[in-house]
Amino acid sequence: MQYSSALLETLIAELTRLPGLGRKSAQRIAFHLLRSPEADSQRLASAIVELKANVRDCSICGNVTETDPCALCADSRRDATVICVVEQPMDVLALERTGEFHGRYHVLKGALSPVDGIGPDQLRLKELLDRVRGNGVAEVIVATNPTAQGEATALYIARLLQSEPAVKVTRIARGVPMGSDLEFSDQITLARALTGRKEL
Amino acid sequence: MQYSSALLETLIAELTRLPGLGRKSAQRIAFHLLRSPEADSQRLASAIVELKANVRDCSICGNVTETDPCALCADSRRDATVICVVEQPMDVLALERTGEFHGRYHVLKGALSPVDGIGPDQLRLKELLDRVRGNGVAEVIVATNPTAQGEATALYIARLLQSEPAVKVTRIARGVPMGSDLEFSDQITLARALTGRKEL
Repeated sequence: MQYSSALLETLIAELTRLPGLGRKSAQRIAFHLLRSPEADSQRLASAIVELKANVRDCSICGNVTETDPCALCADSRRDATVICVVEQPMDVLALERTGEFHGRYHVLKGALSPVDGIGPDQLRLKELLDRVRGNGVAEVIVATNPTAQGEATALYIARLLQSEPAVKVTRIARGVPMGSDLEFSDQITLARALTGRKEL
Repeated sequence: MQYSSALLETLIAELTRLPGLGRKSAQRIAFHLLRSPEADSQRLASAIVELKANVRDCSICGNVTETDPCALCADSRRDATVICVVEQPMDVLALERTGEFHGRYHVLKGALSPVDGIGPDQLRLKELLDRVRGNGVAEVIVATNPTAQGEATALYIARLLQSEPAVKVTRIARGVPMGSDLEFSDQITLARALTGRKEL
């Protein structure tokens, strides 16, 4: 190891800090950058710096954006009466890719997790209540993750919005994923799929 | 997609160009960078730029280095009579990690592959011959990959060095990898392991 280039080791160490990259993947990327044209490296490096310098949170929905409000909140064609609540900006990307949702989003920036010290005050829940209150919102779709934390957050939101009886609170369906095999589904998912069954 | 930040999309696109990173991993890394302190992003970005600006090839062994000759070629404690030939700088890292080799290296920068237009002239073979010729080299260990290209390159090197009868050319052992299961070994590896058997 001591015989390798120190700069190479530095880059590998920095890459290893990124999620999902182990030592070997980091090494492969570092050597790839070493072999590729300098313009490519420059573009990557400046994309990293530009991102941190210019991307902020939308003051309305909390999603990542360069403009405030974000393009989504500023788009008058999106249905303002339906708000989809998600944990993270990445979830907005995932939902947009389905092309099935035409309302607005609200990013909580996490989920309730007392173990990690994340209570209601650490999430954008007050902002959600303010948005919903007297703004003609008809439905709040809670699309937090189907995990213990996500489910707890969903229940909390349902209770929070009981103060607004005009607003319907719904939860995305949980069941067996498309393309999967019943045989390999875990029992909790399968139980959910059974209780959530619908008439054909 | 069009509703996400353009800078975020740019970074994700740049990350997707790296080996081993698909759209989802790239997304995860981009969001991670967005959440992590600015100093971390800066360090990563400058590590990328510094690497391209300062790392070059050692004029002797061809390994990546910031100094020429590299620390390995400059180290008088390393046995100069044994040269281990590898395809890529990454292979030097892998061999150094074993702690079993105390000689010098020679990086070919690839392997013979007529299909890809890589002939002997595209590899650092002339440099190898020059290094071996009349420099007191006793053994050349060919540690190219156990692939069709690597094997062809090994044979080529053996024939090339026939002009230097004082130099012994050896090839690293190919057989069943440690910790593996015979049952799952492919037949070529198993055949190699049989023909390469040694007395206990």
